[in-house]
Amino acid sequence: MNEIKIFSPATVANVACGFDVLGFCLDTVGDEMTIRKVDKKGIFITKVEGFNLPMETELNVAGVSALAMYEAANPDCGFEIEIRKNIKPGSGIGSSAASAVGSVFGMNELLGQPFNKTELTVFAIKGEAFASKCEHADNLAPAIFGGFTLVKSVAPLEVLQIPVPNNLYATIIHPQIEIKTSEARAILPKEVALQDAITQWSNFGSLIHGLHTSDYPLIKRSLHDIIIEPHRSKLIPYFEEVKQAALQQGALGSGISGSGPSIFSLSEGLEQAKSVEKAIKKVYSKTNIEFDVFVSKINTEGIKIIK
Amino acid sequence: MNEIKIFSPATVANVACGFDVLGFCLDTVGDEMTIRKVDKKGIFITKVEGFNLPMETELNVAGVSALAMYEAANPDCGFEIEIRKNIKPGSGIGSSAASAVGSVFGMNELLGQPFNKTELTVFAIKGEAFASKCEHADNLAPAIFGGFTLVKSVAPLEVLQIPVPNNLYATIIHPQIEIKTSEARAILPKEVALQDAITQWSNFGSLIHGLHTSDYPLIKRSLHDIIIEPHRSKLIPYFEEVKQAALQQGALGSGISGSGPSIFSLSEGLEQAKSVEKAIKKVYSKTNIEFDVFVSKINTEGIKIIK
Repeated sequence: MNEIKIFSPATVANVACGFDVLGFCLDTVGDEMTIRKVDKKGIFITKVEGFNLPMETELNVAGVSALAMYEAANPDCGFEIEIRKNIKPGSGIGSSAASAVGSVFGMNELLGQPFNKTELTVFAIKGEAFASKCEHADNLAPAIFGGFTLVKSVAPLEVLQIPVPNNLYATIIHPQIEIKTSEARAILPKEVALQDAITQWSNFGSLIHGLHTSDYPLIKRSLHDIIIEPHRSKLIPYFEEVKQAALQQGALGSGISGSGPSIFSLSEGLEQAKSVEKAIKKVYSKTNIEFDVFVSKINTEGIKIIK
Repeated sequence: MNEIKIFSPATVANVACGFDVLGFCLDTVGDEMTIRKVDKKGIFITKVEGFNLPMETELNVAGVSALAMYEAANPDCGFEIEIRKNIKPGSGIGSSAASAVGSVFGMNELLGQPFNKTELTVFAIKGEAFASKCEHADNLAPAIFGGFTLVKSVAPLEVLQIPVPNNLYATIIHPQIEIKTSEARAILPKEVALQDAITQWSNFGSLIHGLHTSDYPLIKRSLHDIIIEPHRSKLIPYFEEVKQAALQQGALGSGISGSGPSIFSLSEGLEQAKSVEKAIKKVYSKTNIEFDVFVSKINTEGIKIIK
């Protein structure tokens, strides 16, 4: 096998009370990438479609992670990478993460899988760090492992795979505004009230228990973020209206995807996820802001070969 | 059935990163209580052995919780309560909770179980609140439900039962010093660093996952409390020495039981729990402080009838 085509999925990080540690994988939106083994040594970005991204390997997220793995593997061949980018950069659903994992996953397959998923994530962290100036795996882990992942620590990397209830769906709305990462970071409080922190870990522990037991009502009672959301939601117009519209349709919960501007909602069942989609579409249709909205089952497989 | 004898177990609350929400139940130490149906209406404390506690119903924790249930049940009989107190008040392993749950559990059995476990806990909260001036269920829930419990909320009461790995044992040391509740509360920080709070909920979510999957190494990597322990451990002489001695024997983790002064350690297997017992006994034997130490399997049954 000298060529492989892969689907590198969009992901949601910072899942409510699991801020900074919990993420999940989507299945309807993702980048398509073709990785090709070539005789000439090195990593070559040969095509980028969809969005305008650098072709220079060292300036491209997929290139940077590929180089990290290439150095470790030291193979006697090179790789060409073609990227069909479907996830808009800056949308908050793991656009750079999809690029970062796509190249290393594809190369690993062509080399006969010398690396495991954790090792692939470590290489991908280098690409993600190039994009976000910070080593984290919040979007990388769900893209590579699929389902829900808890990144217990980054160095050394420890990823826990949390069970996914069978009938769990996400609705994502992406308001096409720009949120500067620097602003999203600056708005975070340095300190939080102990009582709020206790509430947050109580909810997070309960959420993990709810995912293990497929207890949808408990998931609903746990999907709260009382620490980050009150601050960051100010950067997203109509956040509260979207959330209330989703909850009125019976959604299990809503929150900021990554550092925004996308907003995720979780639902029990496809039908509910679709009625949530309809309701939040209605909210944004009344504004001047362009937006995309879509429904996705939680993707338990993660990144995959499509050809 | 007009008389019942019950075993009301000691419990550990504030389990490391699960401060204020996670507790577990012990099986080797507990109070013995006899509850007797009598014609005369009312609640009567007829005997207290072991420690000097009030005989007046309204001033006795077991009496106060019994009265709360008695009022709700409004039976055409009364109850006598005899208490053989084995759990030393103020030791930090749920002495008042054992009293509070014992009376309501026993009465409920004699009345044909009109109330479920959650309702019993709500009555017991009244007794616990009388003792600690604060409505909480940290020790009550594990005593009534057994195993590990996560008290997601107190009002309304929501208790989650977390699975218990089969081979989990606790070692408890009770240094016989007094910690004033007011001091243990005053020493807590009002605010905590966001980064520390994130670490704590990452650990707590991981601990819940580890308990679900019987992943002992993960439980070990998660059993940390970086928020409360650094403050409260100052109130317990030789806390750090005990903890290090336990960890050197391979314990999964150690922490303050309740608000102290007892210290719990968790181990995989009875043998390890016993070598932890030996090691921490050695630490305290070199001091002038009196102490008790014991090993217990995690008690998955909770409070029970013994006659």
